Amino acid sequence: MIAYQAIIDELYSKINQEENLGQVAQYIPELARIDPNYFGVYFSAVEGESYGIGDWQRNFSIQSISKVLTLSIAYRLLGDTIWKRVGVEPSGSAFNSLIQLETDKGIPRNPMINGGAMVICDMLLRELKNPMEEILQFIRKMTLNNQIDYSDAVFQSEKLVGYRNIALCNFIKSYGNIENSPEEVLDFYFKMCSIEMNCQELTQVFSYLVNSNVTNAAGEQILSLSQAKRVNAIMQTCGFYDESGEFSFKVGLPGKSGVGGGIIAVHPNKYSIAVWSPKLNAKGNSYRGMKFLEQFTTKTELSIF
Amino acid sequence: MIAYQAIIDELYSKINQEENLGQVAQYIPELARIDPNYFGVYFSAVEGESYGIGDWQRNFSIQSISKVLTLSIAYRLLGDTIWKRVGVEPSGSAFNSLIQLETDKGIPRNPMINGGAMVICDMLLRELKNPMEEILQFIRKMTLNNQIDYSDAVFQSEKLVGYRNIALCNFIKSYGNIENSPEEVLDFYFKMCSIEMNCQELTQVFSYLVNSNVTNAAGEQILSLSQAKRVNAIMQTCGFYDESGEFSFKVGLPGKSGVGGGIIAVHPNKYSIAVWSPKLNAKGNSYRGMKFLEQFTTKTELSIF
Amino acid sequence: MIAYQAIIDELYSKINQEENLGQVAQYIPELARIDPNYFGVYFSAVEGESYGIGDWQRNFSIQSISKVLTLSIAYRLLGDTIWKRVGVEPSGSAFNSLIQLETDKGIPRNPMINGGAMVICDMLLRELKNPMEEILQFIRKMTLNNQIDYSDAVFQSEKLVGYRNIALCNFIKSYGNIENSPEEVLDFYFKMCSIEMNCQELTQVFSYLVNSNVTNAAGEQILSLSQAKRVNAIMQTCGFYDESGEFSFKVGLPGKSGVGGGIIAVHPNKYSIAVWSPKLNAKGNSYRGMKFLEQFTTKTELSIF
Amino acid sequence: MIAYQAIIDELYSKINQEENLGQVAQYIPELARIDPNYFGVYFSAVEGESYGIGDWQRNFSIQSISKVLTLSIAYRLLGDTIWKRVGVEPSGSAFNSLIQLETDKGIPRNPMINGGAMVICDMLLRELKNPMEEILQFIRKMTLNNQIDYSDAVFQSEKLVGYRNIALCNFIKSYGNIENSPEEVLDFYFKMCSIEMNCQELTQVFSYLVNSNVTNAAGEQILSLSQAKRVNAIMQTCGFYDESGEFSFKVGLPGKSGVGGGIIAVHPNKYSIAVWSPKLNAKGNSYRGMKFLEQFTTKTELSIF
Repeated sequence: MIAYQAIIDELYSKINQEENLGQVAQYIPELARIDPNYFGVYFSAVEGESYGIGDWQRNFSIQSISKVLTLSIAYRLLGDTIWKRVGVEPSGSAFNSLIQLETDKGIPRNPMINGGAMVICDMLLRELKNPMEEILQFIRKMTLNNQIDYSDAVFQSEKLVGYRNIALCNFIKSYGNIENSPEEVLDFYFKMCSIEMNCQELTQVFSYLVNSNVTNAAGEQILSLSQAKRVNAIMQTCGFYDESGEFSFKVGLPGKSGVGGGIIAVHPNKYSIAVWSPKLNAKGNSYRGMKFLEQFTTKTELSIF
Repeated sequence: MIAYQAIIDELYSKINQEENLGQVAQYIPELARIDPNYFGVYFSAVEGESYGIGDWQRNFSIQSISKVLTLSIAYRLLGDTIWKRVGVEPSGSAFNSLIQLETDKGIPRNPMINGGAMVICDMLLRELKNPMEEILQFIRKMTLNNQIDYSDAVFQSEKLVGYRNIALCNFIKSYGNIENSPEEVLDFYFKMCSIEMNCQELTQVFSYLVNSNVTNAAGEQILSLSQAKRVNAIMQTCGFYDESGEFSFKVGLPGKSGVGGGIIAVHPNKYSIAVWSPKLNAKGNSYRGMKFLEQFTTKTELSIF
Repeated sequence: MIAYQAIIDELYSKINQEENLGQVAQYIPELARIDPNYFGVYFSAVEGESYGIGDWQRNFSIQSISKVLTLSIAYRLLGDTIWKRVGVEPSGSAFNSLIQLETDKGIPRNPMINGGAMVICDMLLRELKNPMEEILQFIRKMTLNNQIDYSDAVFQSEKLVGYRNIALCNFIKSYGNIENSPEEVLDFYFKMCSIEMNCQELTQVFSYLVNSNVTNAAGEQILSLSQAKRVNAIMQTCGFYDESGEFSFKVGLPGKSGVGGGIIAVHPNKYSIAVWSPKLNAKGNSYRGMKFLEQFTTKTELSIF
Repeated sequence: MIAYQAIIDELYSKINQEENLGQVAQYIPELARIDPNYFGVYFSAVEGESYGIGDWQRNFSIQSISKVLTLSIAYRLLGDTIWKRVGVEPSGSAFNSLIQLETDKGIPRNPMINGGAMVICDMLLRELKNPMEEILQFIRKMTLNNQIDYSDAVFQSEKLVGYRNIALCNFIKSYGNIENSPEEVLDFYFKMCSIEMNCQELTQVFSYLVNSNVTNAAGEQILSLSQAKRVNAIMQTCGFYDESGEFSFKVGLPGKSGVGGGIIAVHPNKYSIAVWSPKLNAKGNSYRGMKFLEQFTTKTELSIF
């Protein structure tokens, strides 16, 4: 029996006292002006134990963590046909994103990078009547929190400065791998990135990746066991951009980060853990989040490897 | 209690009857003239159960699987200093190998690609008196088979046509990340690739990745728990070149393949499994090996995710 | 004294009888439905001789040839400051356009590729009150033809399918090298590409590149001698995308092609020649245009080399 | 009648007094220890006038200028068949050399970059009995100087540290575009780079590019008019690596530089000019050489454009 709570307390306290390196995301004012010292952790075990510390009840912008959600919902609705339009290979490096799209004829490397998530969003725009509303409903049911929404201010800011994402979406469109207009796809994509919730809620939303028996409000399994495993495998190899290998190497869990400073990590059949701290390292992943999780899996000796 | 043997029998028989697609490696005569229908599997559980089927007792050229061995021995000897000279990130695609070396100033992406393994070989040339002999001794002790050796014919052929590897090694040398002469490094590297053993022996050699308590002939732990986890993490993200994501996605185990048609896969704390079938798919991984392992983890519901 | 007219007649007749290979540009209906057999040539010597054959009086879409015009006007207005935002190096290959923008931090390689021309358009949007109108006025004065205009149908079609150009412009904007909104820049850029004129008029418009003493309607020199030389140098090294070396090698003149099938080529101090034939080779340059010019400089022994 | 001598005197004196920026090539001791203040110019007009100033009589290592010589001799012997194995397009950037070889399947972009020159050397190894001796004989006849030779010390040093060139040659060999052993090709290539002569001799050797009627010792035309034009066209677009556009833009002449600090430039039918000054700019071209030539063509108003 591992003393999770004690380990979390100890690590939280230790890291909270160490220098907080890195830099808060600067590209939109809503992210830039956040207090860089927020630091929250929430742990939730399959067997019932759960525990939060620090700013675990404070909402933050989930940003790219939303890519796991859109992927899961598309996978649920469309099954393995989604892999015709997006790959499952790590992209190697941020640097290569555009040239890879050129050599791969508009098929993004995986659904965890921006281009891949846009293609997934494009699928959902066709599959769902009100995609944003339906996904928010799903989140609200999973978290039992009807207040969860996207931030319109963040959404508007993302749109305003999102030249690189506009470029990416139009580039994929030029290869025919976007069906809807780039504007619609980007609107949906940016809204998903602007969803806000707290650490506890993140573990609740993604509980189906820890335990594939978890059901939605309608009592249906969200993903089959095989699908859940595969989403975890993709997070493992692709969840942290060009630091995916590093995260796998040091933390050893499937996970996904966002530039809002959040990270969700999953130990299938055992637990999930959400960490949030806004300062990012050079690769765009939460400095304290990475540090906490590395030490957590070392202390608990519980990585998947 | 999973009926491993029954599952293995059933899958082996089924796949053996299906069409055997792909092509045997053609670049050297020793690999090209092998019987394409060889097909062997060996399974070895931590708890003692072990089982072989088909050509599991027949030797084959382990090729790139040797990269796991050189990495492990360098890691054991030098600890985390090795990561100054080689990374832990997936390379994204075969296509990028050389340009990545350029942008990364001669630091190969990971030790599972040729350039990375050469840098590891370079480290061992300094660290060990007779590196080839010492590694063979290690293998012989682990397998209790004193006959295990490299094939001189394969080694000579690799050298003769290895222009691309010569290019790679000299390119890294030009960045100063090879200390010894490229000739020495390549000789050692090619000899390692030319080692021959059978499926059972592969599971024996790599038993320390399943159970980090496994010791060598001197009674010493081969890798610490943390090191074993990290080697597994690297195999997970980088073990199958630009099909690493695909293997992770479909099979869900850390593993490594070689162009001789062998694959070793590891379920930490549970089992290891070696598969050998010479025909390769377009990415250079054993066609039947990939197929067998995908169905094996599906049937047993035992991937790491 | 070279018998230009006889040589032109002979070559025109010969090539007109040979098979007309390649394919008309397909991406917009206005270009796709053109008669592929149009073939016009207009020659204009500094010393006065001028001569047209075939469809030299028929208007066509000048497309990328317009890049020479925007460059010249920006150069005239802003002098060598323009080179802070766009380079003068050949791009090597079409394939590299986007990765080069990444490594070059949003500074396009040269003003003859799409991205470079967009940056030039962005400069003109700030410098001119009604850039499109002013440029059309310039063209009308040079050709003494008040009817010259852009085709609104071509412009609308370019906009409708121009995803790749939208991507490019937004990508450069993301690096801060576009000041205006991408929409404004693209509108101007697409309008410039949609200008229509005939072979004779092309030689009139670009007469200042043959003879830098040519003046505009206000009696001012259009470009200084040094500027005219430099624009010619850029056409020489960059005017034909990744076939620029080939054109330089075979034809030996500064020139610029467009996907409408037009080519303008200049022999400084001697003559200019415009050729138009809609079928394009694999690199997007007029099949008959390239062939005619190669044989023309061979026959006349008058390349710049 | 242009006062070449007065212009040369004035520019030489002016530039000699200005700060001498850049850095002497460091990779081999023979080049590194040269006096950085050497500065020589030699001018030779078709109509007979010729003139030297500064260190024009001092030998230096011609390095990459030798690529024009091997190209010319291969072109003479083999005609246009050489273009099956090497292209005529500028490479865009140094950075891309290796990735371009990958995408172009081992066909180097042009004969002015290292890989292209190696392929040319490979052709000559088959075509000539004693290629090095025969080329030296050619040079000696053209310059009437029997002492011209390659420096064995430079050659040995080039070989010793030439890892990147070894990589390049083996890489091309792996695509089948080198017939001989990489060792033989590299030996020949490095010897060519190690040839030493002075500025005057450079203009003599390359006189056939100014005037295609120039004959060799046997009274034969060295290159046909068309071939000479084409070699000039290649120098124009590819002679200065990723500064080729810049040289074309600023100087406006076909030319070739070497890391020994030499530059040969040619104005077809008018003159050739050789400049030597060992300090190189960031792109590896002589700082003073570039400066001198830019101002020379500006002052004389004689570029090819």
